[in-house]
Amino acid sequence: MAIRALVFDVFGTLVDWRSGVAREAERLLAPYAAALDGGAFADAWRARYGPSMETVRSGARAYVDLDALQGESLPEVLAAFGIAGVPEAVRAELVQAWHRLDAWPEVPEALARLRIGHLLAPVSNGPVRLMVDLARRNGLGFDAILGAGYSRDYKPKPTLYRDAVAAFGFAASETLMVAAHSSDLAAAAQHGLATAHVARPREHGPAGGETAPSVPVTFAAADLADLARRLGA
Amino acid sequence: MAIRALVFDVFGTLVDWRSGVAREAERLLAPYAAALDGGAFADAWRARYGPSMETVRSGARAYVDLDALQGESLPEVLAAFGIAGVPEAVRAELVQAWHRLDAWPEVPEALARLRIGHLLAPVSNGPVRLMVDLARRNGLGFDAILGAGYSRDYKPKPTLYRDAVAAFGFAASETLMVAAHSSDLAAAAQHGLATAHVARPREHGPAGGETAPSVPVTFAAADLADLARRLGA
Repeated sequence: MAIRALVFDVFGTLVDWRSGVAREAERLLAPYAAALDGGAFADAWRARYGPSMETVRSGARAYVDLDALQGESLPEVLAAFGIAGVPEAVRAELVQAWHRLDAWPEVPEALARLRIGHLLAPVSNGPVRLMVDLARRNGLGFDAILGAGYSRDYKPKPTLYRDAVAAFGFAASETLMVAAHSSDLAAAAQHGLATAHVARPREHGPAGGETAPSVPVTFAAADLADLARRLGA
Repeated sequence: MAIRALVFDVFGTLVDWRSGVAREAERLLAPYAAALDGGAFADAWRARYGPSMETVRSGARAYVDLDALQGESLPEVLAAFGIAGVPEAVRAELVQAWHRLDAWPEVPEALARLRIGHLLAPVSNGPVRLMVDLARRNGLGFDAILGAGYSRDYKPKPTLYRDAVAAFGFAASETLMVAAHSSDLAAAAQHGLATAHVARPREHGPAGGETAPSVPVTFAAADLADLARRLGA
C-alpha cells in the first residue's frame, strides 16, 4: 500500500538535540562553570526525560508539557554539576535550549522533497511551540503539528499514534512513522502504522546511536534523504 | 502590546465556503437535480452547522469532527431539495466539498506577508485534515493547525481560544483572533485575545455578510491585506 503521510519523531531523528543543548548550556552557564562539559550536561538532562514523562503517562499527574518537565528536572542536573545556584532567569533560558536545536544536515531538503507528495507532521513529545520554533529555525515544512501537544500525553502511549493517523485520515498502513529509535517504531507498528528507521549513529555523541533497527520495520534508511529516495520523492 | 501570533477563523474569513459548496453540489448532484440552485443548497446545509455542533458543545455527545456532522445533516438537506435518494458514495463526495473551497483572493499573499513576523494558525471548527486540504489547495502557510481538532470541541467554547493562546505561548493580548464574524471575536475577547474583524460582504452571496464588526474590536479591516498593512507586514 502506498505511503500517503509521514509522521516524525523529532529529537534525535530530525534534530541533533545533544549538540544543541551542549552549545546552549556552555554559553549560558559559562559564568557559573568555567569548563562545563556541555555534552555531559545534555546527557544528564536527557536521562531525566523518560522518568519525568512517565509521571504523566502513568496518570499520576495531568498532562504538562515538555518545557515544564525539563524545567522541573533542571535543578537536579545543575546540582549534579555543582552549580545549583544558577539564577531562575538563566534556568528559564536553558529550557529554551530545546527550542534552538539544529536539524541534521540532510533533513530540510529531504522534508521539502517528501512534502510534495505526502502530508507531513511531527509526532514528538515536544509541544506545539517547541515544534514551531524548530521548524522555523531549520526551515522544516510541516502540514500540521501532532504529537504530545495534540494528544496531551507522551509516546509511546497509543493515543499519540492513533490520533496522528486519525488527524490525517489515511489508513494506518498508509501512515509512516519515521524515527531513529526502535522503541518508537515498535509502538507505532502495534497500531498498524508503517515504520521507517533512520540511522543516527552520532545521536548520543561518543556513545553513538542506533545504526540499524532492532525491530522489524517497513524501511531501514541511512538518513532522511535515503528514505525520500526510496519513497520516490 | 505587539501582536506576536494570529489565529484565524477559516470558513467565511479565509475561504469562500458558499461558492465552493455551491460549485461542488451543482457538479456532483447534476445527475439527480437538473437545475439545482447550488447557493441555496449551500445555505441550507450551512444552516444545520450550528445546531449540529451544539450537540457536542453541550456535552450531549463526545466530540466528532465536522466531516461527521456535515455527513449527518446532509440527508435532511438532500430531502429538502427532493433528492433524498442520492447514493452514499455521492454523499461522501459532497462532504468533501468542504475540503475544496477557494480562499478569498487576497488571502494567500497577505498570509505569506503576515507569516514573516508572526506565528499563524487556523482556529476553525474544521478538523486537521480539512484545514490541511484547504491550506494545500490555496497555498496558505500556517505554523500549526489549532481549533476543533486540537481542542476536541467547537467555538465559541472557551477551550478553543485558551488552547490556541497556550499552544503558541504568547500572552493572550499578543494573540490576535481574526474573523469575519463578530460573535467569534466577542468570545475571543472574553479570554483576553486581541481581535481583528475582516469584512466579508459577500460571504452569504445575495444575503451579504458582515461589513463591519458589531462588537468592540482591536482592528476592523476591509480585508486581510488591509490587516497585514496595519500590522506592518
